[in-house]
Amino acid sequence: MPREEGTQAAAQPLSPTELDLIHAWWRAANYLSVGQIYLLDNPLLERPLERAHIKPRLLGHWGTTPGLNFVYVHLNRVIKARGLDMIYICGPGHGGPGMVANTWLEGTYSEIYPNIPQNRDGMRRLFKQFSFPGGIPSHAAPETPGSINEGGELGYSLSHAYGAALDNPDLIVACVVGDGEAETGPLATSWHGNKFLNPATAGAVLPILHLNGYKIANPTILARIPRNALEDLFVGYGYKPHFIEGDDPAKMHQLMAATLDTVLDEIAAIQTEARGGKLTACPRWPMIILRSPKGWTGPKYVDGLKTEGYWRSHQVPFGDMEKPEHVKLLEEWMRSYRPQELFDADGRLRGEIAALAPEGDRRMSANPHANGGLLRRDLVMPDFADYAVGVTHPGRVEAEATRIMGVFLRDIMKQNRNFRLFGPDETASNRLSAVFETTNRAWMAETIPEDDHLSPDGRVMEILSEHTCEGWLEGYLLTGRHGLFNCYEAFIHIVDSMFNQHAKWLESSQKISWRRPISSLNYLLTSHVWRQDHNGFSHQDPGFIDYVCNKKAAVIRVYLPPDANTLLWVTDHCLRSWDRINVIVAGKQPAPQWLDIDTAIKHCDAGIGIWEWASNDRGGEPDVV
Amino acid sequence: MPREEGTQAAAQPLSPTELDLIHAWWRAANYLSVGQIYLLDNPLLERPLERAHIKPRLLGHWGTTPGLNFVYVHLNRVIKARGLDMIYICGPGHGGPGMVANTWLEGTYSEIYPNIPQNRDGMRRLFKQFSFPGGIPSHAAPETPGSINEGGELGYSLSHAYGAALDNPDLIVACVVGDGEAETGPLATSWHGNKFLNPATAGAVLPILHLNGYKIANPTILARIPRNALEDLFVGYGYKPHFIEGDDPAKMHQLMAATLDTVLDEIAAIQTEARGGKLTACPRWPMIILRSPKGWTGPKYVDGLKTEGYWRSHQVPFGDMEKPEHVKLLEEWMRSYRPQELFDADGRLRGEIAALAPEGDRRMSANPHANGGLLRRDLVMPDFADYAVGVTHPGRVEAEATRIMGVFLRDIMKQNRNFRLFGPDETASNRLSAVFETTNRAWMAETIPEDDHLSPDGRVMEILSEHTCEGWLEGYLLTGRHGLFNCYEAFIHIVDSMFNQHAKWLESSQKISWRRPISSLNYLLTSHVWRQDHNGFSHQDPGFIDYVCNKKAAVIRVYLPPDANTLLWVTDHCLRSWDRINVIVAGKQPAPQWLDIDTAIKHCDAGIGIWEWASNDRGGEPDVV
Ligand SMILES: Cc1ncc(C[n+]2csc(CCOP(=O)(O)OP(=O)(O)O)c2C)c(N)n1
Ligand SMILES: Cc1ncc(C[n+]2csc(CCOP(=O)(O)OP(=O)(O)O)c2C)c(N)n1
Repeated sequence: MPREEGTQAAAQPLSPTELDLIHAWWRAANYLSVGQIYLLDNPLLERPLERAHIKPRLLGHWGTTPGLNFVYVHLNRVIKARGLDMIYICGPGHGGPGMVANTWLEGTYSEIYPNIPQNRDGMRRLFKQFSFPGGIPSHAAPETPGSINEGGELGYSLSHAYGAALDNPDLIVACVVGDGEAETGPLATSWHGNKFLNPATAGAVLPILHLNGYKIANPTILARIPRNALEDLFVGYGYKPHFIEGDDPAKMHQLMAATLDTVLDEIAAIQTEARGGKLTACPRWPMIILRSPKGWTGPKYVDGLKTEGYWRSHQVPFGDMEKPEHVKLLEEWMRSYRPQELFDADGRLRGEIAALAPEGDRRMSANPHANGGLLRRDLVMPDFADYAVGVTHPGRVEAEATRIMGVFLRDIMKQNRNFRLFGPDETASNRLSAVFETTNRAWMAETIPEDDHLSPDGRVMEILSEHTCEGWLEGYLLTGRHGLFNCYEAFIHIVDSMFNQHAKWLESSQKISWRRPISSLNYLLTSHVWRQDHNGFSHQDPGFIDYVCNKKAAVIRVYLPPDANTLLWVTDHCLRSWDRINVIVAGKQPAPQWLDIDTAIKHCDAGIGIWEWASNDRGGEPDVV
Repeated sequence: MPREEGTQAAAQPLSPTELDLIHAWWRAANYLSVGQIYLLDNPLLERPLERAHIKPRLLGHWGTTPGLNFVYVHLNRVIKARGLDMIYICGPGHGGPGMVANTWLEGTYSEIYPNIPQNRDGMRRLFKQFSFPGGIPSHAAPETPGSINEGGELGYSLSHAYGAALDNPDLIVACVVGDGEAETGPLATSWHGNKFLNPATAGAVLPILHLNGYKIANPTILARIPRNALEDLFVGYGYKPHFIEGDDPAKMHQLMAATLDTVLDEIAAIQTEARGGKLTACPRWPMIILRSPKGWTGPKYVDGLKTEGYWRSHQVPFGDMEKPEHVKLLEEWMRSYRPQELFDADGRLRGEIAALAPEGDRRMSANPHANGGLLRRDLVMPDFADYAVGVTHPGRVEAEATRIMGVFLRDIMKQNRNFRLFGPDETASNRLSAVFETTNRAWMAETIPEDDHLSPDGRVMEILSEHTCEGWLEGYLLTGRHGLFNCYEAFIHIVDSMFNQHAKWLESSQKISWRRPISSLNYLLTSHVWRQDHNGFSHQDPGFIDYVCNKKAAVIRVYLPPDANTLLWVTDHCLRSWDRINVIVAGKQPAPQWLDIDTAIKHCDAGIGIWEWASNDRGGEPDVV
């Protein structure tokens, strides 16, 4: 296969009017973003800007925001033009002001938060609440309509995107990846998600690498390697990169529009081919590399120092508002967007600009996939008692608990197309192989005849990356589906911080009325065989349990079922639950069975025999049995 | 720059005798590896093999081992031929039997463990102890001579390798990366280490991707993407890949030898150029892609199922030794290495084969860089009291504690070329910028005139990957140097499991007489500014402290210095310590100062005013002040 050069489109698909309107939306979003970071009052700059209109403490991230806004308006164009079902995953979620700005422009924000209406007063409150005591976080968060990716700890956007696209054939998941974020390990391996996405049954992921060149105080690696190396890297990852490079807004709008048209055609072609049964190899999905200045359209210099197109614009490009020249600079900057052309006298976005937004559920901020609870359906559950081990005398019968659970999972997977199993290549070792009687491992890469249960439509997701497994599962759950992560207990600490972030997400979501409950994130942790041999039948590293119990979260449950029948009860219980993180620690070795199924049910229902801790109640290491 | 095709060497550098001897060493190492996994007795197969000679429980990993052994003997050849100073980092450290086998063949093992001599009885004990109660772990571990990479949790070999190479201009760090391991996030981003390695002052890293095709029960991604994509990927990462592909030992030996000659010439050329001051761009370092069968030379089929070149050879390729045909298969397999040609009647490796090993410290198993304590020198420490903030009345003066610490660090870095600072682009944000008065950020990629303190010889290591920072620092410390990792407290959980593994390493090392103490791993954790604003002056997420205090390790210390002067004392104290993990949590915001330096010293020396916990003494969240 000859290598194609990374392309940069030449067409000019936007008419002058379209170009004007798109540019106007972008200016409006940028204006609202700056307003959120800086202003307390005088939102429309109807009066000259004064110190008193500016927040006493300035917090937030400007640098990434204009790029996020640029992507947003262009995605809106193609959603409308092509009737797409699309969500927006914002890797640089610290660009919260941008995400909030667009959702307010789309109207969703005011529908959900009626105290922030689409008018002058609403704009004032929108500005004030941002990163302000009693207000909203500075990052994309559960509070942000349309978001399924917490904007705190970076690195998980693309695995979330792949998780969201699975089994959603009509969905396109646009995923902006920060070039700083791209340096994290979890992000660096998550590009390989394309080898697990079946174009016949899944939707598409459209990665947009946001190459704005800088992190906090440093350039990024990907911005400073030769352009051909950058291209090779993504070709090597299996993508077809499309470059959009520049800083002249008019040119960049045309380029972005043309490129989006191309990549959407490419996505459609891949899907048509696959759905016609004609796909033979793993497709080379398109991706976009957007090289634009950090802090684009912001002040070029501040106090004589380069700011636009430089890391100095990462957070608040300038503070110290006691300096009158800074107040003036801010006013000039904000007026450069010409707000009076964008908003009417009441502070409402002008009609012809507002008309750019898609309607209803097609607005990315209102897309139900990004509020997965709206789409979630309970699993059809077989009766777990049918899988019970017969126990006549406690301790006489031996069984491998997880093997029994595997049979139960097999039948759950048979009956539910919205359930997937995730793990770092340990499903067989964890003795859950019965699931392969009903499904396969997902695999789009090459195969050989000897291969064992690999196929594009497999629903067991195995990659040697605990981060990716966790990210995929989170993305799958957050878009309304069900799943279970199986892992050796010894290695689950790898995802401590992801667990943490997801727990926070669930906790916050529960306090947000419009967020509907999503399925629980279920872990099955098994012990390492050689450790177990030395340590007897108990989990070798209780650290993860301590770690999870340490969360304030009311969302955590830990289960240590001592035998197969209690494990069946626990599995059933966890898979029916929502808005929780369930940690199940179970043995996979042959072990004595204690409870017949009726006794198991009785004990578990009564909460005896199952060591279940909630929140802070940390009990030290329990004796199993 | 035109793209070169990944090359496969054609030369035949080995004479027939050399080829025979190298093959013999390889057979010996393979034989010893199988013996460790399976045998209790009859080590030289002097008698027909019987069930009683075989261990009752079989544990260990065969699949990766022949590849590791293959690499080992070829590295030995070039070490001898070129007088190289080289260490071997074994990513697939579960191939412990291979590492142990080679170090025994080299004699190091018996020198260190005299109860395992180089004779028949020693061989018997070598076999028996492996993964046996009271014996040695099945993975490369501190017990393994020449190892600095724990063979448990995968993903850190390459960041360890880059850390080891820094400031060691004469060292070559060969690093075998498993193709499964390569799927982990931390490994996937660690390839970018080449942008931080200055060929003028650092040694070389030679990555060897061990493409044996499988993980536990699955193929690997990199083995199943098109060959040109694989090549593009590594060209994109900035390397020049050299392919070695095949399964015929004679051909593969010639290929490996020829390729190693080529890449070592390339490394030498890069270094000569750089050290002559002639290097202008980031060099394209060579790497090797070794595509060979998993379980190479092992049984082709077991019970009719494909085993060699397949995932079934990952661990113990067959068990159930009650089956006589399995005993027979094992005997045939082991005899296929023709042990009588390799070992004399006493079980000693024949002289002409043994002569392949380098001598003394040049044996990778005896290289002092892999027992870094041997090379460690105390830091030259300025007097921390010279940096004190004057405090006349407690609480009257304000200072930013970490800014004061930065000045102290600056002078430490000025006086010590064996100290580096690591962090995910937060050094400036953590207010340690004074260090840039004496050094820069390490950076080999492109620069522009506006860049701020980037240079090839910088000793501040910043990449947006907490995993890579931790891995680099561990590699740097394990080879006898000093360092500090600065990070926002909120994100340090990302490296929970790496912290865990390093703590275990230190604990085990302390019980091994020949391992010399290495410098402590020091964390400086600072609070997030916006969190801190909402939460007052306290760390927002005490989870990490709880996590570290939860370790049994006698190696953990936690410090919460309440002001600048106590922070100075703590910094001084930590940088003088060894074999510990020190966690320092400190504020970076202007805050009242409590103790003048004399009082600070008195309080700290007495252990008052510093909240220092060791091991399990977990005190809940302390009140600071
Ligand atoms: C894992 C992690 N480490 C560190 C940080 C602190 N941090 C916040 S933003 C940022 C730079 C992000 O750069 P990039 O992803 O390129 O985003 P952008 O430049 O578009 O703001 C860093 C290091 C973080 N949020 N997450
Ligand atoms: C982070 C992590 N996850 C899971 C495991 C369990 N595990 C042990 S070996 C292995 C497969 C390793 O494959 P590879 O790196 O290719 O080594 P090789 O095939 O050469 O044995 C896995 C998944 C582990 N050791 N570390």
